Amino acid sequence: MVPGAGETGAVTSQIFPSDVQQTLDLVGIFVFALSGGLLAVRKNMDIFGICVLAEVTALGGGVMRDLVIGATPVAAFSNLGYFSTPLAAGLVVFFLHPQVERINRSVQTLDALGLGLFCVTGTAKAHDYGLGSVASVALGMVTAAGGGVMRDVLAQDIPSLLRWDREIYAVPALIGSAGTAVLIAVDHLTAATGTTAALTAFLLRMFALKFGWRAPRAWHRNGSRTSEE
Amino acid sequence: MVPGAGETGAVTSQIFPSDVQQTLDLVGIFVFALSGGLLAVRKNMDIFGICVLAEVTALGGGVMRDLVIGATPVAAFSNLGYFSTPLAAGLVVFFLHPQVERINRSVQTLDALGLGLFCVTGTAKAHDYGLGSVASVALGMVTAAGGGVMRDVLAQDIPSLLRWDREIYAVPALIGSAGTAVLIAVDHLTAATGTTAALTAFLLRMFALKFGWRAPRAWHRNGSRTSEE
Amino acid sequence: MVPGAGETGAVTSQIFPSDVQQTLDLVGIFVFALSGGLLAVRKNMDIFGICVLAEVTALGGGVMRDLVIGATPVAAFSNLGYFSTPLAAGLVVFFLHPQVERINRSVQTLDALGLGLFCVTGTAKAHDYGLGSVASVALGMVTAAGGGVMRDVLAQDIPSLLRWDREIYAVPALIGSAGTAVLIAVDHLTAATGTTAALTAFLLRMFALKFGWRAPRAWHRNGSRTSEE
Repeated sequence: MVPGAGETGAVTSQIFPSDVQQTLDLVGIFVFALSGGLLAVRKNMDIFGICVLAEVTALGGGVMRDLVIGATPVAAFSNLGYFSTPLAAGLVVFFLHPQVERINRSVQTLDALGLGLFCVTGTAKAHDYGLGSVASVALGMVTAAGGGVMRDVLAQDIPSLLRWDREIYAVPALIGSAGTAVLIAVDHLTAATGTTAALTAFLLRMFALKFGWRAPRAWHRNGSRTSEE
Repeated sequence: MVPGAGETGAVTSQIFPSDVQQTLDLVGIFVFALSGGLLAVRKNMDIFGICVLAEVTALGGGVMRDLVIGATPVAAFSNLGYFSTPLAAGLVVFFLHPQVERINRSVQTLDALGLGLFCVTGTAKAHDYGLGSVASVALGMVTAAGGGVMRDVLAQDIPSLLRWDREIYAVPALIGSAGTAVLIAVDHLTAATGTTAALTAFLLRMFALKFGWRAPRAWHRNGSRTSEE
Repeated sequence: MVPGAGETGAVTSQIFPSDVQQTLDLVGIFVFALSGGLLAVRKNMDIFGICVLAEVTALGGGVMRDLVIGATPVAAFSNLGYFSTPLAAGLVVFFLHPQVERINRSVQTLDALGLGLFCVTGTAKAHDYGLGSVASVALGMVTAAGGGVMRDVLAQDIPSLLRWDREIYAVPALIGSAGTAVLIAVDHLTAATGTTAALTAFLLRMFALKFGWRAPRAWHRNGSRTSEE
């Protein structure tokens, strides 16, 4: 742990006023948890599987970031709201999953909002703990996308982050994180500019979904080695 | 790391006299390791696969707990007995796996004993490191069930913890962990009450196995999306 | 974190002169990243999947080691060269993967060199952080092989480390790590002896590849349970 970081640990990533930040965090956690719970239902898991996958999806990225920067005990386990919100999302999915499926488009919108928010706060927290710009950007992306990767690994899917046939997820996170790192570097990270970075990532993700933006696969791929062509 | 936790780190989770605790820990580690080794044999792995899966199953939950609470270096790597016991279990499986398979019922019994023990000591250790009650309960469950999840991920199975068609595992762990947290909250965690909590979790798991207790899947599941009906 | 380890953290595992060490580390990271990128191409992933798998393969083992010993922020995120090298390897694979496939034999040779180097430096770093000999050997093996395991888990393969039908990987790492631990114990770990340990592991791995050395599976396997016979 960075000396003295224990102090700032409680107020870290404090771009927004404390209660606004907390509300935004919980909204992001809730929608990430919904996506985990829905995958658990599709995989025919029971209520505990639903709750575990909701927890992992919502908190996994932040836990990975906190472990890497040495912010222990990790925030997900020291903040009761962070921990109980995914359980609530899991119960919502358990009782109402057909309805949640039906508003899947809205869930994707909220997930994009979580993506935008977490890449900004993840980058800011990593920087607070003394990491350099590039590492902070990487950890912002880990915060935003790590939970989804853990969700897919536990459910035995190839992580959708890695699949060519899914709309891009890493690029919006990269741009939101990099924008945040630049704002920190020029000492201009405020609630307004941080929101702008988060919104940029959010909108890029929404456009990617709307227009089906995908990333290229390797050049000169040898068709005989690939399995999905 | 919690200030001063380094001191208590060595004697943490000390509900029982030191030698009794150590013996119980090693028994739990040994039987968890057997379950990992047996899965490795079924998956046709070689002797190193058997030993790696034995290590991961036996120690994975405790390692995850120690990383989250910041108890580094983690106990599994600073205690020679913790580390070498799974290797012994791996060798037993390597040479004697048909016999171990035959006493599978006994292995499940011992595994339930490990479950009971680890949810209690995991909860107590998390609390020693300053985590709140809910987080301590969660980490007790992680200690008891995390190694099995890592075992299944490495062996490319859906974690049995998450599957609806397996007897409940999370509920016994939850009740054992929650009981321990209550005992800590009212300052009555002793060898006797801790044993009671562990036995409760153990017996619940045994009943679940005997009577085939399963947890419900999501309500109103849409049959066309599910794969196992 | 071990008290005072922050100091030595920067110069830890310093068997070789600083610039030689750094160069060797980057070579090892680069070739590990190539193997991750190539698997991503075979799995039909896009450029981000290639880069993510390159990063995870190259840095995963070291990150696991640093988390276990409490060396946070982990080296992979505090050293810009460590982080950007896998990206370069990912781009090489993206543009030139047919050529990289063609020199696959050379990649395996370089991978064996990375294996040799990382088991030695991983063992030395764990010892620097106060871990005992057996734990240091285990962490040397984790450093050398952990990234490959994470690569295979993310790509939904059974980790090749665990498969009986692949040439042995764990034994060379074990011998290189154990040799290093013995050298530390007798206080004779120098650039010359460390190189010898790394070369021993490297040559064992090369022989294993050349002569198809495999490890035995469990005795008296019951054919009806196994899937690959």
